[in-house]
Amino acid sequence: MKGTVLYGPRDIRFEEVEAPKITAPTDAIIRIAVTCVCGSDLWPYRGIQKIDRPTRMGHEYCGVVEEVGGAVKSIKPGQFVVGSFATSDNTCPHCQYGYQSSCVNRIFMTEAQAPHLRVPNADGTLVPTPGIPTDDLLPGLLASSDVLGTGWFAADAANVKPGSFVAVVGDGAVGLMGVLAAKQMGAGRIVAMSRHEKRQKLAREFGATDIIVERGDEGVSRIMEMTKGIGADSVLECVGTQESMMQAIQATRPGGYVGYVGVPHGVELSGEELFFEHVHLHGGPAPVRRYLPKLIDLVLNKKINPGHVFDLTLPLDQVAEGYRAMDERRAIKTLLRP
Amino acid sequence: MKGTVLYGPRDIRFEEVEAPKITAPTDAIIRIAVTCVCGSDLWPYRGIQKIDRPTRMGHEYCGVVEEVGGAVKSIKPGQFVVGSFATSDNTCPHCQYGYQSSCVNRIFMTEAQAPHLRVPNADGTLVPTPGIPTDDLLPGLLASSDVLGTGWFAADAANVKPGSFVAVVGDGAVGLMGVLAAKQMGAGRIVAMSRHEKRQKLAREFGATDIIVERGDEGVSRIMEMTKGIGADSVLECVGTQESMMQAIQATRPGGYVGYVGVPHGVELSGEELFFEHVHLHGGPAPVRRYLPKLIDLVLNKKINPGHVFDLTLPLDQVAEGYRAMDERRAIKTLLRP
Repeated sequence: MKGTVLYGPRDIRFEEVEAPKITAPTDAIIRIAVTCVCGSDLWPYRGIQKIDRPTRMGHEYCGVVEEVGGAVKSIKPGQFVVGSFATSDNTCPHCQYGYQSSCVNRIFMTEAQAPHLRVPNADGTLVPTPGIPTDDLLPGLLASSDVLGTGWFAADAANVKPGSFVAVVGDGAVGLMGVLAAKQMGAGRIVAMSRHEKRQKLAREFGATDIIVERGDEGVSRIMEMTKGIGADSVLECVGTQESMMQAIQATRPGGYVGYVGVPHGVELSGEELFFEHVHLHGGPAPVRRYLPKLIDLVLNKKINPGHVFDLTLPLDQVAEGYRAMDERRAIKTLLRP
Repeated sequence: MKGTVLYGPRDIRFEEVEAPKITAPTDAIIRIAVTCVCGSDLWPYRGIQKIDRPTRMGHEYCGVVEEVGGAVKSIKPGQFVVGSFATSDNTCPHCQYGYQSSCVNRIFMTEAQAPHLRVPNADGTLVPTPGIPTDDLLPGLLASSDVLGTGWFAADAANVKPGSFVAVVGDGAVGLMGVLAAKQMGAGRIVAMSRHEKRQKLAREFGATDIIVERGDEGVSRIMEMTKGIGADSVLECVGTQESMMQAIQATRPGGYVGYVGVPHGVELSGEELFFEHVHLHGGPAPVRRYLPKLIDLVLNKKINPGHVFDLTLPLDQVAEGYRAMDERRAIKTLLRP
């Protein structure tokens, strides 16, 4: 089969790779219905995160189960399933506390931009849908696999409650999904921090009530003006740079909450500054598995339409163009069809 | 009057200073019943926190109101009152959210190691007791003013719940009060990390079920062993160094809580490490005012005995010896009687 391999900065190839097969009795093989390119894929694509050898790419997926290992009990061939970027046994203590992305048997998926995929810990990782979903639902189900689940965790970690004043730092796909999640959680005001017209429009569609184009200290000042000097109740940090993290922390009121899901790259936090900012800080790899049943349900019942975050659809063999379009910010998020 | 002045590293003098007087209509003047030396006083005493001029010291206090400004409404001369190290109007939005130590009118108290003290924002800062407490209750009431309130906030910020597995990093007075607070909140197991026999004993008196003498990575390993590799639900960080902060974060399970109240000195947190540790982090200057009514009640009803944390009592004019004894770890905490 052919799959996606990153060779170095901006060198993505769709080339012959080994087809997946069952290697552990808890594995499943799925035929991918749709997959996509993640904002976090751009870190190695841009060379900011080094790779030391050609690397298979992709960690967002949904599709039909083709085969399962001998120990797989709840997942059956023929089922349509959605999984997370982190596998989980869903039984260890961390899983039971709802932190499946820190499962003691966690494996980060990395080969999903391909027609077929091996999913370890199939029983604990995959969530089947009732029946085979229609084609129009696939983008939303795919979004649940990571970008929606991650935005949801950002809002949850930021303690968004009915009536909360929420700010979202980052207008990438995760930030936009954070807006959607905050809306679902009943936020009173949702400020999207974005300077891109297309993304502003989508943010409004997902529930943003206000747009702020300023960044850094100026962005913080605007939030302070809007909250009469108090600060936001909840800020979702969906980028992962020093600037975005500080913007999030400083825009939050004392006692407020920062939920951070942008994988930090070179971020250093001063203990003393954090102390006097007085905020709650929580984040990390999103425990998407915790939210999957609920998110799948919201998508299937058309309560939310996270699939709109995909503004470019390409055949899988044009994956390189999918990366380029996101790198150049021509596309928010690229959906790929095998 | 005479008061306590720090001139430089280990140079504490009890010398003639200006007596306090009402300078704003919201002020009160109190006659100090008892005051004390704080662990945080040792940072400038040791020269780790620089001072650029002779500096009045002391921020823990209780006593009798002598005089109030024209705008003070609820506090009356003759009342016995307990205040916090941070003044608060108790009406601004931060105060209403329970973060009085980030009050927009906050002033950090610094002149309490003296016989008389001016307290700004008297109405919002001071909490009167019903009647004048007997002498045996004074140490407990004084503890409420900072060290107990700070330990309580550490436990609250670390989300201690009935049955929680709690670890306390730091066996200073705040750490010991954190043990007491965790016990009151119903923790199932409370591990005090201490290598000093006297402090271990006091920790047990306050509710510690286990003692760990190891520090740093070894300390983390011991917590991991005790929790079967999971990590603690709640860790109270009561020191403020890089080592103690990392020990706290690493000893916490994914999804668990670190409450940090040790004023960070030179602490830098790696965003990436924090991300993958997956913990909740909250702390800062303790909003003691939020807890004062409850803590005073617990002390007056003899439900808790935080006054035991004072293991040295001196006349106020021997304050320099009080600092020395704590600096040399001969005393856990020094109570001073004017």
